[in-house]
Amino acid sequence: MNNKVLIAGAGAIGGFYGGLLAKAGADVSVVCRSDYDIVKQQGYRIESATLGSWQFMPSQVLRNAADYEGQADYLILCSKVTADIDRVALIRDAVAPHTAIALIQNGVEIEHELQQAFPDNLLISGLAFICCNRIAPGKISHLAYGKLILGNLSNSHELNTPHLRDLFLRAGIECVISEDIIASRWQKCVWNAPFNPLSVLSGGLATQAILQNQENFVRRVMQEVCNIAEACSHPLPTDIVESHITLTREMPPYKTSMLLDFERGHTMETEAILGNAVRAAQRQGVDCPCLQSLYVLMQLRELQIRSSGPLK
Amino acid sequence: MNNKVLIAGAGAIGGFYGGLLAKAGADVSVVCRSDYDIVKQQGYRIESATLGSWQFMPSQVLRNAADYEGQADYLILCSKVTADIDRVALIRDAVAPHTAIALIQNGVEIEHELQQAFPDNLLISGLAFICCNRIAPGKISHLAYGKLILGNLSNSHELNTPHLRDLFLRAGIECVISEDIIASRWQKCVWNAPFNPLSVLSGGLATQAILQNQENFVRRVMQEVCNIAEACSHPLPTDIVESHITLTREMPPYKTSMLLDFERGHTMETEAILGNAVRAAQRQGVDCPCLQSLYVLMQLRELQIRSSGPLK
Repeated sequence: MNNKVLIAGAGAIGGFYGGLLAKAGADVSVVCRSDYDIVKQQGYRIESATLGSWQFMPSQVLRNAADYEGQADYLILCSKVTADIDRVALIRDAVAPHTAIALIQNGVEIEHELQQAFPDNLLISGLAFICCNRIAPGKISHLAYGKLILGNLSNSHELNTPHLRDLFLRAGIECVISEDIIASRWQKCVWNAPFNPLSVLSGGLATQAILQNQENFVRRVMQEVCNIAEACSHPLPTDIVESHITLTREMPPYKTSMLLDFERGHTMETEAILGNAVRAAQRQGVDCPCLQSLYVLMQLRELQIRSSGPLK
Repeated sequence: MNNKVLIAGAGAIGGFYGGLLAKAGADVSVVCRSDYDIVKQQGYRIESATLGSWQFMPSQVLRNAADYEGQADYLILCSKVTADIDRVALIRDAVAPHTAIALIQNGVEIEHELQQAFPDNLLISGLAFICCNRIAPGKISHLAYGKLILGNLSNSHELNTPHLRDLFLRAGIECVISEDIIASRWQKCVWNAPFNPLSVLSGGLATQAILQNQENFVRRVMQEVCNIAEACSHPLPTDIVESHITLTREMPPYKTSMLLDFERGHTMETEAILGNAVRAAQRQGVDCPCLQSLYVLMQLRELQIRSSGPLK
């Protein structure tokens, strides 16, 4: 079988899922910049609340995709989606004609630049539902969840996507194939669009406090995202707002990924989550004033951060 | 003439305008809590960029309105309008039957609780357009502007309001009487509603940066405030948004009062400026999603501040 995997942008998410694929028997290499030295020397230490602890020693640990030896069957891109990361440049030198490119990334409408750059490769768009942090160089803590949703953008009946899913399943993580991965992205955005910016703009509130105090507003932002998805021909289940609210109410207080990035001084995925959604709305002529307000405020917040010091 | 004036809530604004009235020959006393000792001893030192510097020694310096000797012709309330200040309690013990109560305060729809508490007194509602700071105990720096707009809520033809205006004019400060002070309040709110919360929620941007980066959003919030004012039967001039934008473009970069309060850890006038406007919109059935987003975010920001430490 085709089991040569290259993970690009191997932080916590990439290291974790790469480590799972290695457990399942795949030949997994990583492009890993920030923790290169330690990972090269001793691999990743992964401590999972649900899957035990293990050492993940990649076959090749690389600073750049160009250094990859051999041809990848799967190139899995796990970087954040931010303006300071050129995702095409990050993977270009390791994309062979038969390489399937899989994204495990946040946001909506994030596939276009990869489709343009690699029109002849299979593109698998994927979403991770996971709590997973880098707690030290080369050390990853998996706290909870872990489900993956994968989907082909072309809806073609090829075998690469089911094969990748099977590898993840073999490693013990939930993984499903979505027939409409674009709708799945919008569905995740319904949750991300209110909670991510509200957590940052409030100065650090967790999900519970936001929901308990401003449930109506959260619902309105969620509904605006549903309206945009529908206008983009990806209507979401009619109970999606309700089920997201119920789910959030049942979750322990949770710090969003954007809040964690903010607290660490990292670039936030404002454009991938909010900017792309607002631009889709504008293209479709859908009014989304609350979502747009959050987007405006995040842009101003980021402007203020940039003007008071460099982002890491 | 009736020249006995008591200033309640005498911080920078109250000390400045009280000092002007004293210059004009009025008998001015103050209720002043935080700087009581130093003001009792040596009065206020006022340094104005446009009116020179002077010492303002109030006739009576009081901790409480109840200690006032004599009866005030004018009781001028200059406190902030926040939930932690009971404005009625602050002045009640010094309101005589003939006392005219004047407010020099921010916000919209802030008169109701005073009208209810003192139905038989003349209520003069006033707005100050001023840059003025307390730079040390008992020391006030007046940086720019200073115009006052005064208006009777009852539109009655009495002489107290023109007389108060004349005192201010005599002291050298611009002061006009508005025939529709409620509309004047909404007009000021058109500016305050976007710039105040955006400056705080962005983490500290001045007006210039906000306008240069998000002019369309600022205009939309301004227009929502105009729609509310109109629904409340106080239509604003049709060019009000344009003229506020032009004015702001011509101003030097400016830190809003809400941002200054935020930076000093003081309570912000969120309810007086945003909450009252949103509630008026709800009462009138006017949709104001951008304004409401700002209000929601300010409430969450304040919740986060309260949960991380006491407000000063």
